[in-house]
Amino acid sequence: MDKKKNISMAVIKRLPKYHRYLLELLKNDVDRISSKELSEKIGFTASQIRQDLNCFGDFGQQGYGYNVRQLYGEIRAILGLDKHYNAVIVGAGNIGQAIANYSNFKNLGFELSGIFDANPKLLGMKIRDVEIQDIDNLGAFLHKNHIDIGILCVPKVNAQKICDELIVGGVKGIWNFAPIDLVAPEDVIIENVHLSESLLTLVYLLNESQK
Amino acid sequence: MDKKKNISMAVIKRLPKYHRYLLELLKNDVDRISSKELSEKIGFTASQIRQDLNCFGDFGQQGYGYNVRQLYGEIRAILGLDKHYNAVIVGAGNIGQAIANYSNFKNLGFELSGIFDANPKLLGMKIRDVEIQDIDNLGAFLHKNHIDIGILCVPKVNAQKICDELIVGGVKGIWNFAPIDLVAPEDVIIENVHLSESLLTLVYLLNESQK
Repeated sequence: MDKKKNISMAVIKRLPKYHRYLLELLKNDVDRISSKELSEKIGFTASQIRQDLNCFGDFGQQGYGYNVRQLYGEIRAILGLDKHYNAVIVGAGNIGQAIANYSNFKNLGFELSGIFDANPKLLGMKIRDVEIQDIDNLGAFLHKNHIDIGILCVPKVNAQKICDELIVGGVKGIWNFAPIDLVAPEDVIIENVHLSESLLTLVYLLNESQK
Repeated sequence: MDKKKNISMAVIKRLPKYHRYLLELLKNDVDRISSKELSEKIGFTASQIRQDLNCFGDFGQQGYGYNVRQLYGEIRAILGLDKHYNAVIVGAGNIGQAIANYSNFKNLGFELSGIFDANPKLLGMKIRDVEIQDIDNLGAFLHKNHIDIGILCVPKVNAQKICDELIVGGVKGIWNFAPIDLVAPEDVIIENVHLSESLLTLVYLLNESQK
């Protein structure tokens, strides 16, 4: 595993897709697969697949292909899915509730430790057995609990303030759904889901394709 | 505008961000901005900004910079936001409801024409004045109404079938939230929001940063 140096963002962004397809193969009781067969399913070229996986180790065997279970395990380990993660959701509006209800979240090894909102009407409500707490408790909660990931689903205007509070509380990964580019220290990872930007990309491509 | 040829996907993916920052500047009554000042806000280099915008036309003036209102208008036009779009949401679970409730949607020029679900408990319920209809009505609805964008929020197992139905109904743009890579003809644009993959990217980077 010592090959793992300077992996490009393009390769990293493809890893979750390998994870998804390998899990699918496992569920369908496929034991082994060649890079050519995997290529036909996943839509990357066979040479791309070999190159990508080569960044992390020597997984395939000439003439045999990949052992699906083993490769799935390796990809899980590379992604860090062999550990558990504690997460909090801040903002229990529509998106926050959708994430809280998202069943795949637990399957992937994420534990929802808390949900926070400022709306008094939501306080005490439970989503999948986790009670929505007052956002004023967030600091104290983070002080008492080790939280890896903060899921930011608050309006744009509050997002940086809550992000700062999560960071002060020791959170090192922010999954940000607010339409804003957050400012954070270098050791904090921010992954954005900017829905409007995704929709605008779709519209641009739609218009271009119809010209 | 005749420059618009072979624009790279990287440039296209940056356009919505320009749109967002220019709207912010407009709201703050900023009349003009240099590529250097815009660079400090948006986080792309000044030369990147000049190159990006140059793909579409000559917008800046030496020594003056960009007229914010004009550039915002140009970016809107490039993105196709000077037109209106009719959309339907298929799948009124958590994500579908979150999108239906998303206030920015209408501001950007998108009209939610229909919401469809298979769950009888949801039928007749209204979200922002749009009634949730039986998914069995989808085909007939698409036959009667011109719909540009289908927002796919159904479980993975139904996604390809509904995608096919949208396409038969004349929909040319699919905003896909199901964790699956859809198969569609070339003239149909598919933009994916794969939430699990975004989360797994975050976790990978989080682990790497802590090594």
